[in-house]
Amino acid sequence: MRTDFSFTPEGHFDNRITRLFGIRYPIIQAGMIWASGWKLASAVSNAGGLGLIGAGSMSPEILDHHLKQCKENSKQAFGVNLPLLYHGIQEQIDLIIKHEVPIVFTSAGNPKTWTNTLKAAGIKVVHVVSSSKFALKCQDAGVDAVVAEGFEAGGHNGREETTTMCLIPEVRNQIEIPLIAAGGIGDARSMMAAMVLGAEGVQIGSRFVCTPEASSHLAFKEKIIEAGEGSTELVLKKLTPVRLLKNPFYDRVKEAENQCVEKEQLEEILGKGRARKGMLEGDLTEGELEIGQVSSTIRSIMPAAQIVEELWQGFNGLFKTIAEKTN
Amino acid sequence: MRTDFSFTPEGHFDNRITRLFGIRYPIIQAGMIWASGWKLASAVSNAGGLGLIGAGSMSPEILDHHLKQCKENSKQAFGVNLPLLYHGIQEQIDLIIKHEVPIVFTSAGNPKTWTNTLKAAGIKVVHVVSSSKFALKCQDAGVDAVVAEGFEAGGHNGREETTTMCLIPEVRNQIEIPLIAAGGIGDARSMMAAMVLGAEGVQIGSRFVCTPEASSHLAFKEKIIEAGEGSTELVLKKLTPVRLLKNPFYDRVKEAENQCVEKEQLEEILGKGRARKGMLEGDLTEGELEIGQVSSTIRSIMPAAQIVEELWQGFNGLFKTIAEKTN
Repeated sequence: MRTDFSFTPEGHFDNRITRLFGIRYPIIQAGMIWASGWKLASAVSNAGGLGLIGAGSMSPEILDHHLKQCKENSKQAFGVNLPLLYHGIQEQIDLIIKHEVPIVFTSAGNPKTWTNTLKAAGIKVVHVVSSSKFALKCQDAGVDAVVAEGFEAGGHNGREETTTMCLIPEVRNQIEIPLIAAGGIGDARSMMAAMVLGAEGVQIGSRFVCTPEASSHLAFKEKIIEAGEGSTELVLKKLTPVRLLKNPFYDRVKEAENQCVEKEQLEEILGKGRARKGMLEGDLTEGELEIGQVSSTIRSIMPAAQIVEELWQGFNGLFKTIAEKTN
Repeated sequence: MRTDFSFTPEGHFDNRITRLFGIRYPIIQAGMIWASGWKLASAVSNAGGLGLIGAGSMSPEILDHHLKQCKENSKQAFGVNLPLLYHGIQEQIDLIIKHEVPIVFTSAGNPKTWTNTLKAAGIKVVHVVSSSKFALKCQDAGVDAVVAEGFEAGGHNGREETTTMCLIPEVRNQIEIPLIAAGGIGDARSMMAAMVLGAEGVQIGSRFVCTPEASSHLAFKEKIIEAGEGSTELVLKKLTPVRLLKNPFYDRVKEAENQCVEKEQLEEILGKGRARKGMLEGDLTEGELEIGQVSSTIRSIMPAAQIVEELWQGFNGLFKTIAEKTN
């Protein structure tokens, strides 16, 4: 556990991550597709964390709209999550620079490709990784911080299947730059556990989908709440491994995978637009419902600001509990 | 995190787990096949933790020998890990009762089958689970505690693939009886993380294989030390999911699985005796090398007592670090 942090007189957190982003609490709301629009990002930022707009499901026009709204509605800094394999990425980057967005989290793809461009525009760059090896490459590429995301996280995942518990300590061992943990974090105890393992901040995804501010369909949010252990699985490893909720679409994928069909057949079953169908439009049967294992502990839809407050109070509470027990 | 614990004036730990087993520290050394004989178990017990003999790879005669040696060499209580699907299990239980072993950890199989027999003989019974659902069944069956083991653990794993980070909080939410965490725990920070998540003790496997006292072959121990992220994988899901180190045997399994061969063909490739071949005899090519993901953080072979001491000092140190930072 790093010791270069402190609680401020105002009750905020001071460490490399809060200073890097200019935020009160080391809590980042993941920029998820079909969930993280300006409403969610501004709610989290206004509550003292860092809200991220999920550009991965936004055309340049839609991203432009969300950036405008977020700037108008956030008194604090917010950022954008930008998957690097998006075909319209140059336009998205132009918009991000035009709107003077101060922070960008990149994922999927080579951090060397865009990091210099973004940093030259004065933007803080963070890259999401699933291995120490890739974390080192990001450090070499000059990013300001990395998010190390474990096997339990929703959406696209690394091939090593390293869990958060095993990943964070090893990334911490190997890199110098600031480290944010993601995957399986949904409450104060998992936030504290991540910090104890060596992280300096936490990125939270699934928990923030279950908010009124997330743009996802209510039916999807309710399905997350119903989820128990074993409700998600990492599938489509022949294409790109993705963690999603089990549903009829999942059943078709598994049936095909259990017959060892070719890549092309899986691509055909996957088709186009299933994540939108499921997560935004609420089609729980045909949709691809990307979410994390931590769903099994999520019990309600709660305003984003209340989640941030609950995390922060709980995190503080754990410090007090531990301090009281220390000789 | 539970608050019903304290550090004693002697610098030991007092909570439900240490009282249940009569141990100084809430550290259990997993009873692993081809690794956990009397030398390892007695070293850990003498150092203040709970050593477990791995009966899963022992015939009744061999178990008898290890129990005798352990009693002679342990000043403290030790236990036995007993996979319930072993064909000679009645004999093993008779020996355990005859030798007055006070603690048995059972795994694989129905806790209802033997729990009453063992408890009637005055033995404390703990069952290993990989889900909250099964933890509740164990509670109903009258066990004294459960070990909840995450996806990252070595050897046989649950089918839900729930990670330690996601499993422990949910099992904690659902059960009343004492909870021990396993999977991905190899140092003080992961031990602390597990306790923060809600565990009252930790079971550690892979780390204790890398000791001079473990009965495994040196070549296997060295391969664990070499392991990095992605060096293990959960395979043979068509039979029973098992996490093992990648090696030529693994390559053959994967090749077969990638062609969707039938169960029977996988059973043929697996054959008999591969775990012994690899873990005990040091055949790194043909052997089945069961070990956890936490291998990526293990850097040396260290005496078991030194590991216990390192864990305990580190755990204490984290309490102090956190206390110093608390307002």
